[in-house]
Amino acid sequence: METIVGSPIIRVDAVEKVRGAAVYGTDVKLPEMLHGAVLRSPHAHARIVSIDVSAAKAMPGVRAVVTGEDLAGVLTGEAIRDMPFLAERKVRFEGEPVAAVAAEDEATARKAIRLIKVDYEELTPVVDLVKARGADAPVIHDKMMDYPRIGIVNPVPNTNIVTVNEYRKGNVEEGFSESDYVFENEFRTQMVQHGAIEPHCATAQMDASGKLTVWTTNDSPHRLRKDLSDSLAMPQTRIRVISTYVGGGFGSKGGVKAEAIAIALALKARPRPVKVVYDRREVFLASLVKHATVVKIKTGVKRDGTLMARDVEIVWDTGAYAEKGPVVCMQATAAAAGPYRVPHVHLIGYCVYTNRMIAGAYRGYGTPQLTWAYESQMDMIAQKIGLDPLEFRLRNVLREGDINPVGNVVHSVGIEACLKQAAQAIGWEERKRVPRVTPEGRYRGFGLACSTKNTKTPSGSGAVIYFNQDGRITIATASVEVGQGTRTVLAQVVAEVLGVPVDTISFSEPDTDFTPFDASTTSSRTTFHMGNALKMAAENVKKQFVDLGAAVFECGPAEIEVRAGRVWPAGRPKEAMTYVEVLRHEFAAGACVIGQAFYYPPAARGKAFHGSPSLFWMYGAHAAEVEVDPETGRVEVTRLAASIDVGRAINPTNCLQQIEGGALHGIGTTLFEDMVIDERGHLLNPNLRDYKMPTAMDAPEVLPSVVEAYHNEGPYGAKGMGEVVTNSAMAAIGSAVEDAVGVRLAELPLTAEKVYTALQLKRMSHQA
Amino acid sequence: METIVGSPIIRVDAVEKVRGAAVYGTDVKLPEMLHGAVLRSPHAHARIVSIDVSAAKAMPGVRAVVTGEDLAGVLTGEAIRDMPFLAERKVRFEGEPVAAVAAEDEATARKAIRLIKVDYEELTPVVDLVKARGADAPVIHDKMMDYPRIGIVNPVPNTNIVTVNEYRKGNVEEGFSESDYVFENEFRTQMVQHGAIEPHCATAQMDASGKLTVWTTNDSPHRLRKDLSDSLAMPQTRIRVISTYVGGGFGSKGGVKAEAIAIALALKARPRPVKVVYDRREVFLASLVKHATVVKIKTGVKRDGTLMARDVEIVWDTGAYAEKGPVVCMQATAAAAGPYRVPHVHLIGYCVYTNRMIAGAYRGYGTPQLTWAYESQMDMIAQKIGLDPLEFRLRNVLREGDINPVGNVVHSVGIEACLKQAAQAIGWEERKRVPRVTPEGRYRGFGLACSTKNTKTPSGSGAVIYFNQDGRITIATASVEVGQGTRTVLAQVVAEVLGVPVDTISFSEPDTDFTPFDASTTSSRTTFHMGNALKMAAENVKKQFVDLGAAVFECGPAEIEVRAGRVWPAGRPKEAMTYVEVLRHEFAAGACVIGQAFYYPPAARGKAFHGSPSLFWMYGAHAAEVEVDPETGRVEVTRLAASIDVGRAINPTNCLQQIEGGALHGIGTTLFEDMVIDERGHLLNPNLRDYKMPTAMDAPEVLPSVVEAYHNEGPYGAKGMGEVVTNSAMAAIGSAVEDAVGVRLAELPLTAEKVYTALQLKRMSHQA
Repeated sequence: METIVGSPIIRVDAVEKVRGAAVYGTDVKLPEMLHGAVLRSPHAHARIVSIDVSAAKAMPGVRAVVTGEDLAGVLTGEAIRDMPFLAERKVRFEGEPVAAVAAEDEATARKAIRLIKVDYEELTPVVDLVKARGADAPVIHDKMMDYPRIGIVNPVPNTNIVTVNEYRKGNVEEGFSESDYVFENEFRTQMVQHGAIEPHCATAQMDASGKLTVWTTNDSPHRLRKDLSDSLAMPQTRIRVISTYVGGGFGSKGGVKAEAIAIALALKARPRPVKVVYDRREVFLASLVKHATVVKIKTGVKRDGTLMARDVEIVWDTGAYAEKGPVVCMQATAAAAGPYRVPHVHLIGYCVYTNRMIAGAYRGYGTPQLTWAYESQMDMIAQKIGLDPLEFRLRNVLREGDINPVGNVVHSVGIEACLKQAAQAIGWEERKRVPRVTPEGRYRGFGLACSTKNTKTPSGSGAVIYFNQDGRITIATASVEVGQGTRTVLAQVVAEVLGVPVDTISFSEPDTDFTPFDASTTSSRTTFHMGNALKMAAENVKKQFVDLGAAVFECGPAEIEVRAGRVWPAGRPKEAMTYVEVLRHEFAAGACVIGQAFYYPPAARGKAFHGSPSLFWMYGAHAAEVEVDPETGRVEVTRLAASIDVGRAINPTNCLQQIEGGALHGIGTTLFEDMVIDERGHLLNPNLRDYKMPTAMDAPEVLPSVVEAYHNEGPYGAKGMGEVVTNSAMAAIGSAVEDAVGVRLAELPLTAEKVYTALQLKRMSHQA
Repeated sequence: METIVGSPIIRVDAVEKVRGAAVYGTDVKLPEMLHGAVLRSPHAHARIVSIDVSAAKAMPGVRAVVTGEDLAGVLTGEAIRDMPFLAERKVRFEGEPVAAVAAEDEATARKAIRLIKVDYEELTPVVDLVKARGADAPVIHDKMMDYPRIGIVNPVPNTNIVTVNEYRKGNVEEGFSESDYVFENEFRTQMVQHGAIEPHCATAQMDASGKLTVWTTNDSPHRLRKDLSDSLAMPQTRIRVISTYVGGGFGSKGGVKAEAIAIALALKARPRPVKVVYDRREVFLASLVKHATVVKIKTGVKRDGTLMARDVEIVWDTGAYAEKGPVVCMQATAAAAGPYRVPHVHLIGYCVYTNRMIAGAYRGYGTPQLTWAYESQMDMIAQKIGLDPLEFRLRNVLREGDINPVGNVVHSVGIEACLKQAAQAIGWEERKRVPRVTPEGRYRGFGLACSTKNTKTPSGSGAVIYFNQDGRITIATASVEVGQGTRTVLAQVVAEVLGVPVDTISFSEPDTDFTPFDASTTSSRTTFHMGNALKMAAENVKKQFVDLGAAVFECGPAEIEVRAGRVWPAGRPKEAMTYVEVLRHEFAAGACVIGQAFYYPPAARGKAFHGSPSLFWMYGAHAAEVEVDPETGRVEVTRLAASIDVGRAINPTNCLQQIEGGALHGIGTTLFEDMVIDERGHLLNPNLRDYKMPTAMDAPEVLPSVVEAYHNEGPYGAKGMGEVVTNSAMAAIGSAVEDAVGVRLAELPLTAEKVYTALQLKRMSHQA
């Protein structure tokens, strides 16, 4: 029975953060450091006719000026290398970097970029997603087929479709013909911002020996190193990436963003380091957004509520460059039929370039958009066939050992319990006895929804543990603390294996020169993958103590017992020695024990990379209570219950905090957040005044809970959870609004204006 | 047959150093960094009555002022914790830190220390080593018995004797009675400076979370971390030591020196970092020196030249604080009878406090002083019994399997070959046919000598190897590159095991947060110990590739062949895959292989630490040709042959360079270097004008060669060599002077003044 795993200990990084000692990306300071600024395109689509940097170069304090020409042919992109560090000959979105300046201080750099003259020839912007996908749309990337790409990217020549992914199970036409009802709907989701407090920033230095070091608020130092190595054609060991603490990421802090500018400038300013910090407008325009989508979903169902067939088509707006778009398309499309038993399935995703902001990973990696679609439709179906929404779902949700819509046999399936817990928390059964109109005249409604998400599969994590002379432990891991609490959870795993207090464990910062390969801190994969790697590494340490104990006590390793940080020969517990005593006994002159492990899902070894089947699936459910003001259309979420299947709660408090944060995150997307882009591709609200993020004032009473459907292969049964915590909030709220005022909106967000308009239309149609 | 080991490749750090990218201690710059300066005692022995720091504190730009009171009770010392970071109540040597200031710039800090008023009450300085040892000498450390100390330190209460070490073999009195001749002589050696180009310096920061980081030019980051952890009562993982490149050490760059000042100031200036750089005078006064010694040596010999008995008493002047003195005493005393078969041996060393500069490790760790004594005496004996000095030695030197003077059975014994090679190189046989007087009227003479040195035993080294995705390798090791070429040699070992080019290998800098435990970069131990650790770690990597190969080719691991960086199933070489291909095949989504090992001499495992028997013994011989000007007494070394038993030359060029450097180092000690200290304990020549170090003008023709007496346990047969390269130079030169002009001096250095005086005395005695 575990004693440390499962315990709600305080975060191991709490003191450091509370005292202000934690170093985030913007805290990086180096001697002789220059500061960079970026000149960005005012156009969404234009040809660059000429750039004149002479005045900027001549300005006192300016040390380096770069344009795309300086890095001709250098391209980056996780799935397809389509993006220059700075625009070459053409700009493809408003805010694309065109030139950059490094100067002695930031003010000088920002002044200098205003002296750069760029002559553009405007091109027709491709802004509408549906049109962008069409055969007659202007082609944004005419060299698309020449870009280096990974195997899973399937571009369609002479179009803006950078990839198509398709999944089939059964025979969907047959499924529809066997159904009593067939529903066909279209849902849309908007581009939203991640909205991390910390802006994107990076500091780069190319030293005199030719080694490039990058200090950055990046969630995946090893992936960044590999990407830079590919882009710059440098050996990986000539590049060092140090990831600071990340001040909020939600998917936006991966890949090559501010890093590209800092590096471009550092190559010119060599050997001086250059720091680049985006302002909020730059974060809005030129970091990353969540994919806008158009989802067509067709579902066949029997009269008794049994799902028979589902056909989903998703068009993903990946913006001007693909970034992780093709991987989002591949991975999320696979989850598009939801957490249900559906015998006949066809799923197809199109990832499409537009002249809009670059879209990529955003908490949920595409599955929130899909959940909005399939769960909204689930309620429409339930209404039609006269089943309670909870009952309808319970009849169809996956259970242990089922085959999911993409043909995976699933294990660790807590969705039934999630639905029941969320429903119970919100008072699902009692809701009919609650007054539907509040004393203030607002309409009350209830809704619930559930969701599932897969994880990046396969992927590997390496870990090293140093058991020091004095019994203190250092963990060398490239997993990045982005605020999710990963260090705490990982420390608990190691402490549990070794039977030592958590406060004896420290972490070295993620640094590609020192911390072993880890695929990424994304996809809710860290607890599972790095948890496994560290569990194995800790077991490796323990095994070494068994062998040392055998030497000390002159017996076979099989006779050695190790528990609670002590080692003794079987049957002689009085002779027990601490680890430190064992070390001193065997190595009187000093020693350490080094444990190492590399975890890679065994089933995926020796196989080509294709991203499926998922190593684990996450499940969760939300139940919402809302009040809608019929005079303004304003929606208030008063209570939001969320129940998430975490496999095993290694730190229950941490899990509940994730669920609470995710609930609020979901409310933002549902009710207000929206990147408003005009027909020329200009963002109209690139700031936190005009772009509305939820604040504490918008926070409902959140009712979080966990479900523990132990995963066989997860460390102590745990699996990921950090993304699925937002997924079903949107549809739950959308259904609650429908329940309250009888209008169902197909397109997010559910702004007061939209709700009010829908109410007016409804009244008008009633009056007509 | 090895292809990379044994090859004279160019140093792997050459480009970085030539381009100025290498970071040494003085290159460390941090944002917000303060600069420290130290107020030092003008007295060698005094009580501190009062310190007034008010004026310094009030000076603009000053940010922190510390005195011993701020760190009351904090003591440091590798063997016995006797030394405060700053003097408390008493000063014990000229230059001892009394107060320190951190200010915005170094000039301000140095000005501010001049405003500090200290009232001293002078005490009788204990300067004469022989008197210091006596029972009636003033006691320098009245709390000596209370200091925490390691087991090998045996202090004598109420004296200045901090430790006594004694070794016995056979019955020395019996040995003398069986001898035909008994010789009894006294030899003395002087205090000398290491004279590294880079001064001592350190930068420390105590961050807001309570983590202490020290960037320093220190040869042993893990030992420093442990020492600081003990001194400051902080867990090891709250302390991070980063060792920069070291710009010359020779033993002086270990322990707690400038680090103490930087840390004392950083604790007060928290969280700002503080950098302290010693000027040359401070290096002279307050870093480290080589022990001055008084050696009494009594040797019994048969008429045929067979050594029968040797009794050696050494008094080691360890200065005001013990530092490594007790360990030097323990270890070097064990080597005091030389590399000879001697049946009856008694060796005793006394390590004695004086009010002089602190003595400790200096290239050779005490054995150069002893070699001066026993080899000078060997020539006196040879002369007396009428044997050629080479022949006399060859009759007595140790050979494979012999038992040495402290009872170790020795293996890998190349001393006979060293003597013969050095003698041949200098033209030992032909020397009698060479004119004894040069055309300029200078007298020519020849001398030879040999030596042996043990290594710190036992001690451990840990290593981690990261085999990266692109086939590039990162080595994580705490071994410090002090200019000895360790990175090159270690890279060759790893490249040899894995069959990959050396230029695919990079090193991460030594950093206790990331690089595993290593005892120290001292004692010529790194090639052997870290070489073994890295060889094992590389074999661990190779083993993992065997297992991966077995999975790829679906066969047993025993059927897998790995050579030249390729992996294939036995008998199917056409299917060979590179390591990278194997990795990609097994782990399509990315991976690394982590190899780790901890090397500790197997024979020492599970035993108490006692420093003996040595894991390996180094051997070497020098043969010198000198010319002595009888008008001035000036000695010029015209040729110096040196032959060193390296076990195996992993990089022959590197070995020859070490031997050349060592030869010049030896000349300095022999001819000019001397810390001139007056009867009040004041150093009269604390600068490089008055303290004479050898320059290129003093360099003889050096004739270096290696002997390879493979060591069974060494990596590819290699053992250490970096210290023994100086040892026998002194006695060889001394004997050559005697051969040239007929005077034998018992006390180093052989300055022109001393030689001239001896010649005058000799003439006078002839005339008398």
